[in-house]
Amino acid sequence: MRRPTIADVARQAGVSKGAVSYALNGQPGVSESTRARIMAIAEEIGWRPNSAARALNGARAGAVGLALCRPARTLGMEPFFMELISGIEGELSARSYALMLQVVGDHRQEVAVYRRWWGEGRVDGAILVDLHVGDPRVAEFETLGLPTVVIGHPSESGALVSVWSDDGGAVRETVEYLVALGHRRIARVAGLPRLVHTALRDRAFAEACEGVAEQVTVHTDYTGEEGARATRRLLSSPARPTAIVYDNDIMAVAGLSAAQDLRLDVPRDLSIVAWDDSPLSQVVRPPLTALSRDISAYGGHAARRLLALIAGEDVGAFQDEAARLTPRGSTAPPPSGVPHG
Amino acid sequence: MRRPTIADVARQAGVSKGAVSYALNGQPGVSESTRARIMAIAEEIGWRPNSAARALNGARAGAVGLALCRPARTLGMEPFFMELISGIEGELSARSYALMLQVVGDHRQEVAVYRRWWGEGRVDGAILVDLHVGDPRVAEFETLGLPTVVIGHPSESGALVSVWSDDGGAVRETVEYLVALGHRRIARVAGLPRLVHTALRDRAFAEACEGVAEQVTVHTDYTGEEGARATRRLLSSPARPTAIVYDNDIMAVAGLSAAQDLRLDVPRDLSIVAWDDSPLSQVVRPPLTALSRDISAYGGHAARRLLALIAGEDVGAFQDEAARLTPRGSTAPPPSGVPHG
Repeated sequence: MRRPTIADVARQAGVSKGAVSYALNGQPGVSESTRARIMAIAEEIGWRPNSAARALNGARAGAVGLALCRPARTLGMEPFFMELISGIEGELSARSYALMLQVVGDHRQEVAVYRRWWGEGRVDGAILVDLHVGDPRVAEFETLGLPTVVIGHPSESGALVSVWSDDGGAVRETVEYLVALGHRRIARVAGLPRLVHTALRDRAFAEACEGVAEQVTVHTDYTGEEGARATRRLLSSPARPTAIVYDNDIMAVAGLSAAQDLRLDVPRDLSIVAWDDSPLSQVVRPPLTALSRDISAYGGHAARRLLALIAGEDVGAFQDEAARLTPRGSTAPPPSGVPHG
Repeated sequence: MRRPTIADVARQAGVSKGAVSYALNGQPGVSESTRARIMAIAEEIGWRPNSAARALNGARAGAVGLALCRPARTLGMEPFFMELISGIEGELSARSYALMLQVVGDHRQEVAVYRRWWGEGRVDGAILVDLHVGDPRVAEFETLGLPTVVIGHPSESGALVSVWSDDGGAVRETVEYLVALGHRRIARVAGLPRLVHTALRDRAFAEACEGVAEQVTVHTDYTGEEGARATRRLLSSPARPTAIVYDNDIMAVAGLSAAQDLRLDVPRDLSIVAWDDSPLSQVVRPPLTALSRDISAYGGHAARRLLALIAGEDVGAFQDEAARLTPRGSTAPPPSGVPHG
């Protein structure tokens, strides 16, 4: 039980190893009928040119790497990553590229993994996700020489190719919508503050509310537990918000339940907006107003640019479509009895 | 911008390539201080022995493969796969093994991918998931020679090593619990009928209900949409069930909303049980009674056995713990006014 070798093909075909080598490399020295027979046998027993031999000759690894630096327990609850991976995969598999996936504990470990993969010829490129503010990985990858695409804002991507979408624009659209409904006190239950896209949303949210609504942002770890806790705290405060925007859908669903536990009706007493629309937003009651985007396509764009980069093409930053607000049953004008700030 | 080579180390150290080779291979011919300096430079610029060179010498690929044969759009909504991958990853990364992931369209494509990966020396082993009844992959993998672990029931795994949990036992525990509460008309909203674990649950459910409750099973594609539709159909039938068991949590949440849309109170008018407990089951109202299991640990068991198999050890089937029923607020005795069948 082992990989088929040229010797196996030779034995089955009843010819010498040299003849097999001639046939498979398209060199003269064997007749056309023998060549055809050898090729058929090689195909049948599953012989392939060894990737090791090809790599020694400077061929590509045929794989790109993706290291995820998040606690394993939160990954299962983030449809985002699985959809992103599906999109990346779609592009890669069409080009017979594989994805090397590794969950790492921290950024140092992540850089070490890529250094090893690249040094050992296991990957031809990398996709960096979850960019941090002042991310040390950017400088590391700039000097590594490994073709790299960052899924994140160009302002924090250094010399690396960036694929991004306008988080600020989506925040502004949401605030304008809530203000138009009459909301004057809006809260945001945000994700991890050290992530670049959280920081961008934080700033855009504060700016969009300026002069039109009171605002407060609470940071969490993206779990439903913290989303529910933040919601309870906000709804128990004297200056209760009439609308809450959540940075992911699981927190929005948890916030909806927390509000209902407090005998508040959504959307009559409280409006809720979820970030990253998913089937989940539509199966709860009321269905959630959400910021929709095609995450799978986003992953596909990143993979396509990475493959171009690996092929030696000149690749610039790519701005994907911003998330669009999809109004559903969880948003309405605020209760008229609530005093405005 | 390219991989560091021995020539790069030699240039930076100001020695010959031969000296670097001696130093890195632990051969005599260089002083200890030169060896230390060469090692430090190699480390600093990220030089690694080429995996291709090692593989040609019969070394391992240091990677295992996982091909997922499901529509990309349903993957994002299945916390199951991401949790399974997290568990597999945990074991692999501790041993510096990577995971090669590929989403494939069908089983023929999946076998072709593995044949190529194995033939090219890219993977040392494979994990098969979503076993079908009479799965053609089993015979293919038996002859391929690639060390393989199947996540699925041993009765359908042929000569391959199986890691499984007792779906039948979990179904029986659930039916016994519902019958003890007084339910006499129980429905099940199941997943894809061609999957082995669906078929096992189907049979166990029919047997467990025999003589104690009327039962019906409806098959779906695991999406919330189909879960809601199946629920509406069941609840509109003349012989309305008083309890429904769902094969995943997203369908259970969708079913809960569908029941509430029909002005039914859960658990007063209808009891609901979700399969595969996740944070989702706990953030909806009422929180769902669910079948809990440690999916990450399940993936870890599979990876551990695969690594043992790759190491040439004798590995038998492994039965993981069955899912355990965790009662929460979505189950109660049936309404007394409902006529029993």
